[in-house]
Amino acid sequence: MQESKLFELLHSLSWAEKVGQLVQLSGDFFHGEELSTGPKQKLGITEETVKLTGSVLNITGSETTRRVQEQYLANSRHKIPLLFMADIIYGYRTVFPIPLGLGATWHPELIREAFEVSAEESRSAGAHVTFAPMIDLVRDARWGRCLESTGEDPLLNADFATAMVKGLQKEKDGVMEGIASCVKHFAAYGAAEGGREYNTVDMSERRLRQDYLSGYKAAVDAGCKLVMTSFNTYDGVPVTGNEFLLKHLLREEWGFDGVIISDYAAVRELIDHGIAKDEKEATQLAMQATNDIDMKTGCYANQLEPLLKEGKIDPELVNDAVWRVLKLKNDLGLFEDPYRGATPALEEQTLLTPENRALARQVASEAIVLLKNEEELLPLVPNKDKILLVGPYGDKQDIMGLWAVHGKASDVVSIKAAMEKILSPDKFSFENGCDLLDDYQFLGEFGATKEQIASVGMTSEQRIKALDDALSAGKEADVIIFAMGEHTMQSGEAGSRTDITLPEIQKEFIRQMIALDKKTVLVSFSGRPLVYTEEVKQMDAILQVWFPGLEGGNAIVDILYGKTNPSGRLSMSFPHSVGQMPLYYNEFKTGRPLNSTTHRGRFISKYLDSPNEALFPFGYGLSYSNVQYSNLVLNEKQMTDQLTISVDIKNESERTCLETVQLYVQDVVGSVVRPVKELKKYKKVQLAANEKKTIHFTLCREDLYFYQQDMTFDAEPGEFIVFVGKNSQDTLNESFELLE
Amino acid sequence: MQESKLFELLHSLSWAEKVGQLVQLSGDFFHGEELSTGPKQKLGITEETVKLTGSVLNITGSETTRRVQEQYLANSRHKIPLLFMADIIYGYRTVFPIPLGLGATWHPELIREAFEVSAEESRSAGAHVTFAPMIDLVRDARWGRCLESTGEDPLLNADFATAMVKGLQKEKDGVMEGIASCVKHFAAYGAAEGGREYNTVDMSERRLRQDYLSGYKAAVDAGCKLVMTSFNTYDGVPVTGNEFLLKHLLREEWGFDGVIISDYAAVRELIDHGIAKDEKEATQLAMQATNDIDMKTGCYANQLEPLLKEGKIDPELVNDAVWRVLKLKNDLGLFEDPYRGATPALEEQTLLTPENRALARQVASEAIVLLKNEEELLPLVPNKDKILLVGPYGDKQDIMGLWAVHGKASDVVSIKAAMEKILSPDKFSFENGCDLLDDYQFLGEFGATKEQIASVGMTSEQRIKALDDALSAGKEADVIIFAMGEHTMQSGEAGSRTDITLPEIQKEFIRQMIALDKKTVLVSFSGRPLVYTEEVKQMDAILQVWFPGLEGGNAIVDILYGKTNPSGRLSMSFPHSVGQMPLYYNEFKTGRPLNSTTHRGRFISKYLDSPNEALFPFGYGLSYSNVQYSNLVLNEKQMTDQLTISVDIKNESERTCLETVQLYVQDVVGSVVRPVKELKKYKKVQLAANEKKTIHFTLCREDLYFYQQDMTFDAEPGEFIVFVGKNSQDTLNESFELLE
Repeated sequence: MQESKLFELLHSLSWAEKVGQLVQLSGDFFHGEELSTGPKQKLGITEETVKLTGSVLNITGSETTRRVQEQYLANSRHKIPLLFMADIIYGYRTVFPIPLGLGATWHPELIREAFEVSAEESRSAGAHVTFAPMIDLVRDARWGRCLESTGEDPLLNADFATAMVKGLQKEKDGVMEGIASCVKHFAAYGAAEGGREYNTVDMSERRLRQDYLSGYKAAVDAGCKLVMTSFNTYDGVPVTGNEFLLKHLLREEWGFDGVIISDYAAVRELIDHGIAKDEKEATQLAMQATNDIDMKTGCYANQLEPLLKEGKIDPELVNDAVWRVLKLKNDLGLFEDPYRGATPALEEQTLLTPENRALARQVASEAIVLLKNEEELLPLVPNKDKILLVGPYGDKQDIMGLWAVHGKASDVVSIKAAMEKILSPDKFSFENGCDLLDDYQFLGEFGATKEQIASVGMTSEQRIKALDDALSAGKEADVIIFAMGEHTMQSGEAGSRTDITLPEIQKEFIRQMIALDKKTVLVSFSGRPLVYTEEVKQMDAILQVWFPGLEGGNAIVDILYGKTNPSGRLSMSFPHSVGQMPLYYNEFKTGRPLNSTTHRGRFISKYLDSPNEALFPFGYGLSYSNVQYSNLVLNEKQMTDQLTISVDIKNESERTCLETVQLYVQDVVGSVVRPVKELKKYKKVQLAANEKKTIHFTLCREDLYFYQQDMTFDAEPGEFIVFVGKNSQDTLNESFELLE
Repeated sequence: MQESKLFELLHSLSWAEKVGQLVQLSGDFFHGEELSTGPKQKLGITEETVKLTGSVLNITGSETTRRVQEQYLANSRHKIPLLFMADIIYGYRTVFPIPLGLGATWHPELIREAFEVSAEESRSAGAHVTFAPMIDLVRDARWGRCLESTGEDPLLNADFATAMVKGLQKEKDGVMEGIASCVKHFAAYGAAEGGREYNTVDMSERRLRQDYLSGYKAAVDAGCKLVMTSFNTYDGVPVTGNEFLLKHLLREEWGFDGVIISDYAAVRELIDHGIAKDEKEATQLAMQATNDIDMKTGCYANQLEPLLKEGKIDPELVNDAVWRVLKLKNDLGLFEDPYRGATPALEEQTLLTPENRALARQVASEAIVLLKNEEELLPLVPNKDKILLVGPYGDKQDIMGLWAVHGKASDVVSIKAAMEKILSPDKFSFENGCDLLDDYQFLGEFGATKEQIASVGMTSEQRIKALDDALSAGKEADVIIFAMGEHTMQSGEAGSRTDITLPEIQKEFIRQMIALDKKTVLVSFSGRPLVYTEEVKQMDAILQVWFPGLEGGNAIVDILYGKTNPSGRLSMSFPHSVGQMPLYYNEFKTGRPLNSTTHRGRFISKYLDSPNEALFPFGYGLSYSNVQYSNLVLNEKQMTDQLTISVDIKNESERTCLETVQLYVQDVVGSVVRPVKELKKYKKVQLAANEKKTIHFTLCREDLYFYQQDMTFDAEPGEFIVFVGKNSQDTLNESFELLE
């Protein structure tokens, strides 16, 4: 539709119809399906509001969306199509690894492809908008939503944000072929204090801008159509009512003219936060902050018209918001085709194609991180050693993580299924070994009944037998592969934990099995960095596989048996203990640094009773190849606008590998304290057996910009150190001087 | 000296002499004694600098200070006396409990007396200035310096700051009888990220002003003569070079015209922080920020004159700084008497008098917190039950904590010594039972040799025998008292721990002893809140005794046997696990609160795997009396300027008790999110057996002030909830409305 006609449409709407465009209800109001994450009590929503509602949450499937859209339009005076929004976070039917695994690929271009697939599948199923990417910077592994983030680094997060938005909104000849992307959760939700879900966020504006905003900014610059507000406060004000963040920073400073949508019930939660005394005040605050759509509460629906009548809201604020929603619908082409081509036939041929599965397998392979490989135990040779696979994740298809809303467990390839394809029965056996959790009571939080909870997991007799069977089988084996991990519901939204180890029942099982003194491999499933202090001592090899998605089993077995050379690198630091939280590689310099030459003994910045570095640092990951770094060369010792940096890397093995070359910089002296190290460049490079390559990076003046003491964003002349290597700790170093 | 003469003196000084007044060296330069907490390498200090140095660190004792002063003045052209500063944190020779214990008294007036004693003793020993009070607000028990703070509450900290400053600087007829007080560590040092010593501090200015500044402000308002800068950054700038905090906030906004002194070597640490490239820049930054004295580095001594010559420092900045130092010396009367009356004879009669000891015993009694008392096991009756005292703290005199620099272990009364005084040998026995720590390697940080470390603690044979002996003795006992705790060097400065439980070797010992199935009491020594999750299940009674100072044994036994009714109340929350850090009662409301009526199930602000409240909340502490609260009455339901609040309390026991009545307020709706609860008033009240009293509080409008969204400091009309009770959780509630 032409903008001028859209403008006429806007002004032909009644206030009730306008308000309707700003209301989002969940699918249950439309007799569809619902995945709800909030309160269920009555919202005070009338039949009339449902009729006028502009968008709907988490109805998918081409048949359902088509039916709902038809019914809706039949009752609509102006025939403005309903907008279908859904949680499609890391794949629709073809489920990829959780984003923390995607971050570990260090391969944004590959993830762009994955998100194109995700968009294509989603569109065929009738979705118009997805609440992705989630790009919150994370530094505390206690927080369950680490699962949804690509990690702790501002640059890496920004690159992934760009790739994900461009993948989802894939354009061809200026037309959006994908679906609209809604970046979330703006802003700094990942800094919830103590890693406790929904907790207060407090930080300086300097930290906000320097570290936390880069991902959102990149998504906005990449053209994402929507931004979702976060649940947390910033500077004392919940973001959904925060004028500084939404109106001034996002809209005025960054020029974002798309739709801002509240997170689930966040408008009404302004009351719980205690900055609004009732729904009317909550509505007023959110609207003044330029939050356009109210997700899943009755606030806008019931309070906006009274506020307009009382003159407490500028009508132009409402008109602007409605205009942005109408424009989004128009940009999606909904006025021309409210279904965007989604049909059951198209859906059938689009979902879960062999090509999509193959891509999921590749992505999972690149996401998996080899943390330890003593005496090159891995890769195994098929049918050489006798293998016992044990543990609750050995034969499990529920390995997609909490936010794979549209995935089907029956589509998933388990480790056991993948191993059976390549191993003969006399060389391979499987035992459950132990229960996943000792206690499943917390499943009651999702409404599971006592009977349902009791039916999960093993009885105490079954537990005893499972251990006996595993010990017997273990005695016969050469290598024991432990498939262990967190329960799916121990991470993701509201999955905050104070103890971030493997569940104790699994640790106890491992202790018993380790006594058999066999070769051991830990394959660990988790939605966060876990503490592996004990397992590092016990295991010969450790694979961090996250929740790897539906091709997980195949990808894991590809790596175990060397079909794939592991290439994942951590995008979030792994701690020695939960007592180290928060932990991140790009921490600020202190006055009494750990590795200082002038400070020694007790009085340095450290914990007395723990190593002070990460157990596995940011950027860390092994492969089956030994890649040597040498000859770090800067083309100049002084830089004005740019500098070329080269390093030689040599694959000293007989296998092809993917090496992620990482370049970090330290700004030695600044007008404010600077991080000990910051990632500035990286390249994922393929090296054939024994191949040597020279890798070139161009470092620009802009790469050295930061918020100076007076908040000027610029570089400061002086000494810089360049670090190039395999991870954030293991590097070659050279210095240069930045000139005025 | 008259100010006009002082002014003449200032202007008669050469630049080298002026600079000298701004230099502080440690005692070793004067062949005295030294307690150093920093680097030891050469500072580039010349003989000439030593001669001109204006103040000296940690030389005490009337004889030594007198000798050093005499020698110094003999070499001095202008006869400006040397200023003796020292770490006298919670007592000089009469050592009181650590400040976290002082906080638990909830009795600032008593602590004022203790600090008067501290000043009197210190003055007699030649000290002029003490680096106290330390008043950093603390919310993370991992940080070792919790030991030195009175706790997590802005109001309580402010009240203690006032009491301590007024105690130390005790005035009579306008003359300072005490010693000068240096409040520290300005500012927000307690917020070191992750509780890791010297780590970055980052927070909004709102949080800084609302929570962290109150203690320093109270100390400044109480007239403290000096302020010490903290080691941390604020808003990216280390405080010692932070113009916003020192020059603008402390001097211009608060009107502080006393001396600012850097913490130990903090000026040179601006280089480690990376905001100065060398000592010259470090000097320039610190001086521009109006930091007057450079503690224990060569920066000012070697760089100030060159900077002046090069025109890089305004000479008036230096003159102002020197003026403040001279004025401090003059305020102390040093020009009239450079010894301030300190003589060996006076010192002898002032230190450790019976009255001082009695006060230390009372303070320790009020500091000890009874955390648990199942079936009223306590108080014990002398010589009724057969008592076994076990554990490394049973017969230990090292119970003064890390910062009792001038205390003597030989002055300390241990628990065993105190028990022997009242118990007959057939009813009392003592066994060491177990070692304090499994491993003493970390003592090497203080320069202990391998041999010295090896000589600490028990051999493995001794450990086996100790356990056997304890088990045998335990079988014969009716009640086992466990005297356990942290090693002195596990807390205090640079005592950050990731694991804040009792040392594992002690926990293992307790597990073995608990199997004897006797009545059990834990007496726990620590410099921080410890995690007692396991001990709460094991023990019948738990006494938190901190490091209680030299009358510790007597005070503990007074409570164990009911001579004193315990009255301590926690001033810092005790967690269920380290994974809950940071933890504080006055946290901000979230949008999905734990105890909400509208949010249920998974999606609320909590940890999945842990209780979300404190194990023992702020304000908590038991006594041997059951005090009932009733009849909470507000004299009005609406408030304009003030409100009278009353509550009835009744001692339902046959013992006299001290009850701390606590009044908290919640501001229901604010322009920014407000805490769930804030302490506003408290009264420590004595109740005779079965006595009933009505307690009155006056709540003023000013008590409700906070930093509004636009940073106006004022109250906002609307609903408030008043909570009155025994601690922050167990309260009666009433609402009122604040009018415009």
